[in-house]
Amino acid sequence: MTDERHDATDHDHDHLDGHPDDDRDAPEPVTVLGLGPMGTALAGAFLDAGHPTTVWNRSPAKADPLVERGARRAGTAAEAVAASQLVIVCVIDYDAVHAIADSAADALAGRTLVSLTADTPGRAREMAAWAAERRVGYLDGSIMTPTTTIGGPDAVILFSGAEALYERHAAALAALGGRRVHLGADPGRAAAYDVALLDMFWTAVSGIAHGFALAAAEGVSATDLAPFAKGLHELLPWTIDEFARNVDSGHHPDPVSSLRSITAGMEHVVHATRARGLDDGAIGAATALARRGVDAGYGADSMSRLTELLVRTAGSPVSG
Amino acid sequence: MTDERHDATDHDHDHLDGHPDDDRDAPEPVTVLGLGPMGTALAGAFLDAGHPTTVWNRSPAKADPLVERGARRAGTAAEAVAASQLVIVCVIDYDAVHAIADSAADALAGRTLVSLTADTPGRAREMAAWAAERRVGYLDGSIMTPTTTIGGPDAVILFSGAEALYERHAAALAALGGRRVHLGADPGRAAAYDVALLDMFWTAVSGIAHGFALAAAEGVSATDLAPFAKGLHELLPWTIDEFARNVDSGHHPDPVSSLRSITAGMEHVVHATRARGLDDGAIGAATALARRGVDAGYGADSMSRLTELLVRTAGSPVSG
Ligand SMILES: NC(=O)c1ccc[n+]([C@@H]2O[C@H](COP(=O)([O-])OP(=O)(O)OC[C@H]3O[C@@H](n4cnc5c(N)ncnc54)[C@H](OP(=O)(O)O)[C@@H]3O)[C@@H](O)[C@H]2O)c1
Ligand SMILES: NC(=O)c1ccc[n+]([C@@H]2O[C@H](COP(=O)([O-])OP(=O)(O)OC[C@H]3O[C@@H](n4cnc5c(N)ncnc54)[C@H](OP(=O)(O)O)[C@@H]3O)[C@@H](O)[C@H]2O)c1
Repeated sequence: MTDERHDATDHDHDHLDGHPDDDRDAPEPVTVLGLGPMGTALAGAFLDAGHPTTVWNRSPAKADPLVERGARRAGTAAEAVAASQLVIVCVIDYDAVHAIADSAADALAGRTLVSLTADTPGRAREMAAWAAERRVGYLDGSIMTPTTTIGGPDAVILFSGAEALYERHAAALAALGGRRVHLGADPGRAAAYDVALLDMFWTAVSGIAHGFALAAAEGVSATDLAPFAKGLHELLPWTIDEFARNVDSGHHPDPVSSLRSITAGMEHVVHATRARGLDDGAIGAATALARRGVDAGYGADSMSRLTELLVRTAGSPVSG
Repeated sequence: MTDERHDATDHDHDHLDGHPDDDRDAPEPVTVLGLGPMGTALAGAFLDAGHPTTVWNRSPAKADPLVERGARRAGTAAEAVAASQLVIVCVIDYDAVHAIADSAADALAGRTLVSLTADTPGRAREMAAWAAERRVGYLDGSIMTPTTTIGGPDAVILFSGAEALYERHAAALAALGGRRVHLGADPGRAAAYDVALLDMFWTAVSGIAHGFALAAAEGVSATDLAPFAKGLHELLPWTIDEFARNVDSGHHPDPVSSLRSITAGMEHVVHATRARGLDDGAIGAATALARRGVDAGYGADSMSRLTELLVRTAGSPVSG
């Protein structure tokens, strides 16, 4: 065992001291700007995969644990950018991305900036235009899984932007783990998936918080309710497949529950909520939409009909 | 093999022709009032389990397929009630339950009425009071799974009301399948679980319909989005457990995502929705609640803090 380990180490040394094209396999240097929970997880994954990693955060103290793990601390965003061809920015929104990128615009020219910051498709496209004007390579990405998944097999990260740029940095991006998908050249496409998916996800999570409040108001503990809630949520993947088939085909046949019956059930929830003086929040708005579907003549259809109703009755765009 | 089967049959015949207490094991006669998709599934499960089953529906034609399978058709609700000690009513809401029960009140006296109709806890308690005044035994139940599960192992049905009544009819109710849980004597308790669970479930399903609309508006097909949506929804059981722990303990520690970060993400979804002119519906209301939590000083907490905020800021009850 000891001998074998020595052999491996010797071989590594030979390799590192060896041929000029060794750099092809050496982990590419990377810079991570923004060290909230997610930026910290990303930088940690690069370190774990052996990438020389330079970090910067507006509040410098957040870099300390990463520096202890071997990261290089930069004093400014521009200095951090100068350290690597590949620059990741992961902050709270695109206002923050702009604040950082503007301060480091000169240093960014000729490098690749990958924003793993969640925002709207419009802002991602606008950021791509900003980058193009300054000869900055730009990829936009959306991280679909929690910090705890980063670097492991369960991470899901969507990218969009020029394919060639994505390929050039594919080896480094692989350090972030799991399932990486390139969705094409339109820089807004990853954000389009992101907003649609987060729409579903945070609506559901908000419903969980609200349902526990309604239960509490009725004297039912969250712990007592949780096993049943989990059982019910196991039906959602099935619902997603059914709705996807219906939406893309334009047919909404043979529902297990008709929109009319569901709407009656939702209205009971709203009544029960109001009877306890609770804000009816998301379920109130969801019920109003369902009722609009019944009134529009879709009572016998699957609830998936509401997708079409929403798209068809969309008003003028509101910028924001 | 043939011999053994004969033995069993002979034994059954001996048994049926035998002692006066044989009736204990004979399937109890049941009546099902209301033959929508769910009432039809319930009656079918009783038939499959060998119960003499009498059915009635306001629109008589819906009984036809069940009569073909061996059910007895009654001309009126009162006539149907007179056929069995155990009477199930499963219709759209308690206005319909009242319409039916009032028309059969005399026949119901001394029998057990089990409402498997979804409505509010208040209406379930009011129905129990109606029944008590008329010497009708009353159980309230909530079916938590689709029609397709009824009679099989995946059905989940919650009951509340007098334990003795539940025990008396346990063998018959077992024909409905799967997981049956008696939640105690308060007749409103099954409905309390029901409204809290349906609050979560229909909010989530409405979010699915809305997310597909936002994706469509961005040129992303439902089929392309669905695999990612399913992956994301696999996180919900984990979220339910985390929130339940936090809500019942009053501590909302160490969030994977802080309420502040989530709220920023939700606001991007709302902006993207409005940018396409779509009604922001449930995600709009959910985002307003999240923003209220941040403004109340909970930005660093888990989103589970919103449950407490909703309960604490509940206003006066609104009847409905
Ligand atoms: N956490 C997750 O599980 C998760 C999952 C998927 C996607 N995401 C996405 O990842 C991104 C980062 O999320 P996060 O969890 O790390 O936390 P976050 O709270 O969304 O972002 C915190 C980071 O943003 C920085 N920041 C905020 N305003 C700034 C400004 N004006 N200028 C410069 N920096 C600014 C913070 O710097 P300071 O430290 O100086 O305040 C910190 O580095 C978000 O877009 C989020 O939606 C997160
Ligand atoms: N379907 C499911 O997957 C499911 C799952 C869980 C729980 N549930 C609950 O089960 C109950 C029944 O649901 P369902 O799916 O069978 O369909 P539904 O559309 O909710 O109810 C249809 C039934 O209600 C009857 N009805 C409506 N108004 C009436 C009135 N004024 N007087 C007498 N009868 C009236 C209908 O009679 P007509 O035929 O004459 O119109 C029909 O029998 C609901 O409370 C529902 O929430 C259903």
